[in-house]
Parts: sequence; C-alpha cells; structure tokens
Amino acid sequence: MTTPFGPSYVRAIAPYVAGKPISEVAREFGLDEASIVKLASNENPLGMPESAQQAMTKAAGELGRYPDANAFELKAALSAHYDVPAEWITLGNGSNDILELAAHSFVEKTQSIVYAQYSFAVYALATQGLGARAIVVPAVKYGHDLDAMLAAIDDDTRLVFVANPNNPTGTFLEGAQIEAFLDKVPRHVAVVLDEAYTEYLPAEKRYDAIAWVRRYPNLLVSRTFSKAFGLAGLRVGFAIAQPELTDLMNRLRQPFNVNTLAQAAAIAALNDNAFLAKSAELNAQGYRRLTEAFDRLGLEYVPSSGNFVLVRVGTDDAAGNRVNLALLKQGVIVRPVGGYGLPQWLRITIGLPAENDAFIAALEKTLATA
Amino acid sequence: MTTPFGPSYVRAIAPYVAGKPISEVAREFGLDEASIVKLASNENPLGMPESAQQAMTKAAGELGRYPDANAFELKAALSAHYDVPAEWITLGNGSNDILELAAHSFVEKTQSIVYAQYSFAVYALATQGLGARAIVVPAVKYGHDLDAMLAAIDDDTRLVFVANPNNPTGTFLEGAQIEAFLDKVPRHVAVVLDEAYTEYLPAEKRYDAIAWVRRYPNLLVSRTFSKAFGLAGLRVGFAIAQPELTDLMNRLRQPFNVNTLAQAAAIAALNDNAFLAKSAELNAQGYRRLTEAFDRLGLEYVPSSGNFVLVRVGTDDAAGNRVNLALLKQGVIVRPVGGYGLPQWLRITIGLPAENDAFIAALEKTLATA
Repeated sequence: MTTPFGPSYVRAIAPYVAGKPISEVAREFGLDEASIVKLASNENPLGMPESAQQAMTKAAGELGRYPDANAFELKAALSAHYDVPAEWITLGNGSNDILELAAHSFVEKTQSIVYAQYSFAVYALATQGLGARAIVVPAVKYGHDLDAMLAAIDDDTRLVFVANPNNPTGTFLEGAQIEAFLDKVPRHVAVVLDEAYTEYLPAEKRYDAIAWVRRYPNLLVSRTFSKAFGLAGLRVGFAIAQPELTDLMNRLRQPFNVNTLAQAAAIAALNDNAFLAKSAELNAQGYRRLTEAFDRLGLEYVPSSGNFVLVRVGTDDAAGNRVNLALLKQGVIVRPVGGYGLPQWLRITIGLPAENDAFIAALEKTLATA
Repeated sequence: MTTPFGPSYVRAIAPYVAGKPISEVAREFGLDEASIVKLASNENPLGMPESAQQAMTKAAGELGRYPDANAFELKAALSAHYDVPAEWITLGNGSNDILELAAHSFVEKTQSIVYAQYSFAVYALATQGLGARAIVVPAVKYGHDLDAMLAAIDDDTRLVFVANPNNPTGTFLEGAQIEAFLDKVPRHVAVVLDEAYTEYLPAEKRYDAIAWVRRYPNLLVSRTFSKAFGLAGLRVGFAIAQPELTDLMNRLRQPFNVNTLAQAAAIAALNDNAFLAKSAELNAQGYRRLTEAFDRLGLEYVPSSGNFVLVRVGTDDAAGNRVNLALLKQGVIVRPVGGYGLPQWLRITIGLPAENDAFIAALEKTLATA
C-alpha cells in the first residue's frame, strides 16, 4: 500500500498559471526578447517610477539584514496617506499574499467561501488550499451579482471575496452598491474587497472603501503596489481592516514577507502623484485605442475599469488558445482565460501606444488569416 | 451572540517575535543608529556580496514586471550547482516560506507534525497555523534526539522537521546519524531537513543531504540565501525534493513569491565562493572570540555549528530578559530566547570583530554591575 503525500484537497489543486515571461516566449518561439510585446499580466507599461528607483538605491546597502518585520516606516506612510491607524495595516508579499492570509486566517476546512464566477483565480486557489468549500456565484454580464452573492452566504460561510474592478473581466461595481451589500452581510462573515486596480478609476467612479473600514468590523480592503504603482517585480500589497481581522492575519503572516527594497520603494511610489496620474492617463488613452480597434474589427469586449480589456476573439471554444498561439508567434504575449471558463476570450493588458498598436496589428493579421 | 472571527487554532497563535531592527532600538532607547550593534538575527555581518549587488543592479530595470513565476534562470543555476533536476527545486520567500509550504502541502488539521524541543520557532507556528497536532520531542543536550523523534512518529504523523545545525541552539547532528534516521522513517512521512546554516560547517562536518534526495522520496532539503549568502533582506530560500513532494508544494506556492531582484542576486551569490569562504572564516574567528570570552566569564554556552552562540547569562528565569535589556541600553541587540523555553539564555549572532568586542564589553559591564 502506498499512501500518497499530502491532503486530498491539495492534490486536487491545479497550480496557478502565470503569464509567460518575455524570456520564456523568446526561448520557446525563437524570438528576439527586444521585439516581444508583453500585454499579459496587467503590469504598468511605464515600469517602476523613478522615485521608487531612487528610494530602492538608498536601501540597497542594508540587504544583508532581515527586513523590518513590522515595516514601521511603510506602515507610517500608509497610515498618513490613507488616514488609518498603522495598527490596522497588514503588509503582504503582493496582494496575493493578503488574499491567501485572509482565507487562512478567517476560514477553516469545514467552512465555506463565497466569490463570483469569472473573478480572480487566487480566490479559488486560496479556498482549495484550505480544503474549504467554494460557493461560486454566477456572474451577470461578466461581473459580480452582489444580491446573489448575499443570498449565497451559507451558515458556514466565513469569507466573501469581492473584486472591484474585477480581474479578468474589468467590470465595476458602484461604491453605493458595495456599501448596500456591506450593510446586509452578517457581521461574522469577513468581506475582502480586492481593489488591486482602484488607482485606475476615473474621478467619477471613485469611492472611499478605506473610510468604510471604520464602520464595518468585518471589512478588509486589499490593495497592491503591483499595478498602477509599478512595483510588480518587488512584491508589496497591503490590507486595511480593524484590529480583530488584522491581528488574526498577523498570527499567520510570515514575519519577513515583504523585502527591504519593496518597503523602501513602496513609500516613494505611494506619494508619487505625478506618476500615478500619468499612468492613469496613459491607460485611458490606450483603452480608447484598443476598444476602437475592437469595434472596428467587430469584436465583443467587456467595458473595463482596469488596465486591461477582455475581448472575445471567436465563437468557438478553441478560439482563445488559437488566437493566443498566433499572437505568440508574432511576439505578442496576452492572457488566455480558458482557465476562467472564458475559452473564447483573451485578456489584453493596456500597454504603451506602440505596444497596443503592435498587438492590434498582430490581431488583425491573425483574424484576417483565420 | 458574537461569533469571533477565525478558526480557534489561529486565534491561539502567538505571532513570531522578530529581532528588533536597529531603527526601532534607536527610537526606543534614544540611541544613534550608527552606534548600535545588532547580533540578533543570525545575519551575515559582511552584508550582501558585491557580486549580488551587481547582479541586482542589472535586474533593476525590470521591476514594473512580475517576477518569473518559474524562476527559470535561478532554478537552472541551482540545478547546475547542486546537480539535481530543476524540476526538483521549489523556491520560497526565504526558507520560512518553504517551511510553511511544506507543512500546508503535506499535512492537514487532523494529522500531526514531529519536531524537537528548542528547534526553530517556525515549526511550531506552521503546525499551529494548520491546526495540526504538534509532537514536541524533548531535546538532549539542547539538540535533537533522533531516536526519540523516530519513536514519536504516530499513525497520523505526516511530517518531521529536523534542523541541522539547529537554531537557536547551534547543535549539530552527524550526517551518518541523519542517514540512519532517514532509513527508519516510514515512507509516507515527509522529512524536512532544514539546513539554513549548512554553509558555515567546517569541511570535516560536511555531508551531502542533497544527494540523499535521490534515495529518499520523502526527504526535502531546505536551504536559504539569508545566512552565509548574505541576502536576508531580499528573501530567497529553496527546497530540493523529488517531484511528488515538489509538485504538491507548487500547488500551494504563491506564483510570484520570490521577487525579481532576489532571483538575480541569488544566482550571483550562489557561485561567489570567495565570499562564502570569507564569511565562514570570519565566523570561525568570531566563534573563538566569543567562546573564549564566555569561558573567561564562566558562562555556560552550547557548542555551536552555526553563526551564533547560545549562552546562559544567569541561573534565574529573569536572567535572559534582564541582561538583554541591559545590553539594549548599551546599544547591543541580541536575541532573548524565553519564547523557546530558554529564559536563562541569550542567542548571540557572531558579528564583525569590532561588533563581537562591543558585545563582550557590554556583557562584562552588565554582569559586573548585576
């Protein structure tokens, strides 16, 4: 008799498939790295802000030391910026770490987690990694159906994931809708509001979820430095919640989860309003450029509030992978979303103008020869 | 009725207490940062190697992008260096991440984990974080009792943690002892051999645990770049195990757990033999200096194979904290180990010669006035 290693719920997990790195595509397709356009991982095409580069350089002499486990300076900066006590902040190795920590801190195997169809893959992975029960609520127009999510909360539910804007679909919930939802969620059910893309929202869509944390002891707002702030390669995310939730997460958090350079760079990026404004403006321009092309090509897309667009590239279930492969051969990396149950679609990150144009040209060529 | 958030086993955890950062001690005791000596976290006193600095600088232009989730280049370098297939390697955000991943990948709540009294705090934390049962085996002479650990393996045991050298005591097991242990551990019980300090071993103590991985499908060897390699602030650790264990960990691993700069720096540090040799030599000298002082002062210490020494600073259970506070006031940060059940002891990281001397002077002064 051979006993397999590991819990059955771990053995059942399909690992997360990350966007292909440029170097891997170059190796696989025999392409020159410099010619490759990567619009696959919702990264900021401007890269890291200069302010963060400088802050990082200053901290580079301290790398033989462990990071500050309590991240005194970064928490102080976040506390001032978002007007919350430093004790309400939890840092993560990217917001992925925050989402995993929340699941493991608030839920156990015999309980359940609610999230929406077509929402971020990590919600499913975190649930599976616990062996907890996933309650997946059908999407409406590729977005969250908050009424249905509320109704889906079961006796054993301890956590609801809400993404706004949602990834990979880009759909958006009005602040008032979320507030009404929070009013109705039972107080013993934690709500993780994942706002990874919030810095891309135009003024008229903004709402202040962090202010709500004072009213809702079960609300945790998750943010990241990987998107608009341009620090994906450094790994920093953070959560804001009242002390009861924050203290629980700190019991499971790996003490040195956020490296020294990430802490230093995040402080600089946080207050680089010029960089954020430039990033949002570039994104708005690119969104118009991409969606005009999709309209011209007669391709359905989901209106997006993020730095990416979900576009339907065919009406058969092989379309996503087929078009993706054709794009890869032309040196354009985008994200197939068959794993999300969207095999006819691709998710395109909004890039620099030249990158968007290269993608549009490659897509046109692909569709013309299909 | 108020239902508290979180599983009861999470609520019961006392968070890991990290070594105080220099900046925090400066704030707390009104000291000048430059005058503070930190011998608290088993860091390499030489800091990061120059080779790694240079590699990091080259990678600093790519930080807007996510890290390579599969760490192609770092795994290739580790594969070549340690002569194992790249598919046998798992990377972690420090070896803390490896230890947590192993526990969550191999064990569930209804099962148990075996580890030794006075061994690394993360073994207990990882066990508690799962809600699994801890089987803590009494130490012999502050080290692992492998026979007793073998006998302690229960029907529901799925993981044994073995640290060699052990932290915080510095004790060492001969390679032959570990091999004999591995021969007797049931094949369905994973053994995590934590070798965070292995690069400090003198030639006569060396053994090749990575070669054993080919023979034992239940063996996982954990290593880190945070100690002799000098990259604590960047966060990289790695595990080597056969594909069955490795594949399980990859199902739970956060895809971007190791940041871009850490991957680049680790490749350089891995092959910097001159830096490693210098680090080991400096450590050996410092060990002699510290232990001579302890002998002179009549203080008991545990012979150490790591880059630290556990020393008994008094015979009452307030001694560790009392002497620690006196040292802090003099600007010397060491590690109290009351949390390990060693309240009469302090753990002293071996530093630069001047740091060791500053500590010895402060300790002498403290003991003279006690």
